[in-house]
Amino acid sequence: MNLILLFPEDIIPGTSRAILKGRRQKHVLSVHRARPGDTLIVGLEGGMIGEGRVLRLTSAELEMEVVFTIPPPPKTPIILAVALMRPPVLKRVLQTAAAMGVEAIHLFHSRRVEKSFWQSSALHPDQIKEQLVLGLEQARDTVLPEVALHPRFKPFVEDAFPVLVKGRQGILADPCPEPLGRVAAGPKVLVIGPEGGFIPYEIAAFRQAGCRPAGLGPRILRVENAVAAFLALLA
Amino acid sequence: MNLILLFPEDIIPGTSRAILKGRRQKHVLSVHRARPGDTLIVGLEGGMIGEGRVLRLTSAELEMEVVFTIPPPPKTPIILAVALMRPPVLKRVLQTAAAMGVEAIHLFHSRRVEKSFWQSSALHPDQIKEQLVLGLEQARDTVLPEVALHPRFKPFVEDAFPVLVKGRQGILADPCPEPLGRVAAGPKVLVIGPEGGFIPYEIAAFRQAGCRPAGLGPRILRVENAVAAFLALLA
Repeated sequence: MNLILLFPEDIIPGTSRAILKGRRQKHVLSVHRARPGDTLIVGLEGGMIGEGRVLRLTSAELEMEVVFTIPPPPKTPIILAVALMRPPVLKRVLQTAAAMGVEAIHLFHSRRVEKSFWQSSALHPDQIKEQLVLGLEQARDTVLPEVALHPRFKPFVEDAFPVLVKGRQGILADPCPEPLGRVAAGPKVLVIGPEGGFIPYEIAAFRQAGCRPAGLGPRILRVENAVAAFLALLA
Repeated sequence: MNLILLFPEDIIPGTSRAILKGRRQKHVLSVHRARPGDTLIVGLEGGMIGEGRVLRLTSAELEMEVVFTIPPPPKTPIILAVALMRPPVLKRVLQTAAAMGVEAIHLFHSRRVEKSFWQSSALHPDQIKEQLVLGLEQARDTVLPEVALHPRFKPFVEDAFPVLVKGRQGILADPCPEPLGRVAAGPKVLVIGPEGGFIPYEIAAFRQAGCRPAGLGPRILRVENAVAAFLALLA
């Protein structure tokens, strides 16, 4: 946790003091091992970054005097559209995408996505937010990316995707012979398929919607590695 | 598993038949759901890639007729030198580095590495190999990267590292203000620090040894994401 993300409800109304309990307080206690007087980097959800001076830290509560002084890092102008994955991989991908600063994450169905993945509790809004917060805390950001779920492929690629990709380059990450090469600056949509890959109809549909397939050579990467690798190359 | 990695001991001597038991056989049974006559992509450790035709698949054994026809993908001309990390992260980093085709992986100690990490069973040669094999199976490669352990920082950076970096560009991944920018082709050593970052003395020692610090902007990435991101940018 390189930054403690605070939410409006953490701040005592009318003051510049914040009181935390639970995961963040326990982390400061056991990992940071902070003492009264120490300062920690804090950020306000959707807002500025600053410092929290520890006033009181017990096994139950952390109280800080907080001041917010600098803006968060700019977002990476990329929307990530990725086929839904197994819950443990989903958690890592949400953290990674948030840490690397994407503007939005669209999770969509495709033929080789197991239908049961859509029933996972990892898709509950609270659980998604938990992973995004971990990513922001890692990267010292405060702005949550939007997350949208698209449990049907056709309406996603035909109706939602063309709106997303408007005014952006669409890049379809695919273990294909077309190398990514040099990429022009500007906003992008990065599309990443399921572990088993897209079926030809799906690739054709994304091409039709304006995406260019591009690969990183003959190696097939795990989804979480493909996300980090392509975001680094496109940022 | 996009390729089943075979070892010499899997082949029945004097034949082109392989018999597998355990993890790989169970995976083919329950995930690939192969039947007799199906073909699977196989590779021989350190050698060629080809096809295995299933002759027999029971709950105990998989027997295949194998033929090896094409070379594995070329290695990525990068040596990864990374500070030792928590065992679950180590496993993912080994898989990722093997999948992305690095030539060698050097795990070293630095100030902010917990000493207890060096006692982990995840460092046993068998356990390291298990993770590397998972990475090769993911990426359809057959050539295991070398792995070396350096439990003391000073001998590593002063004696071992100068030999590694000879004839290569040394890049020190660091959340620093110097952007990575354009990178010339050719072999490289990528150095990645611990979750808590390097201390100034360590950065100075790597600089002294010929490394250029370079960052990806203000965001601090988890080690496994930094590995995937920098390997993609440097390959």
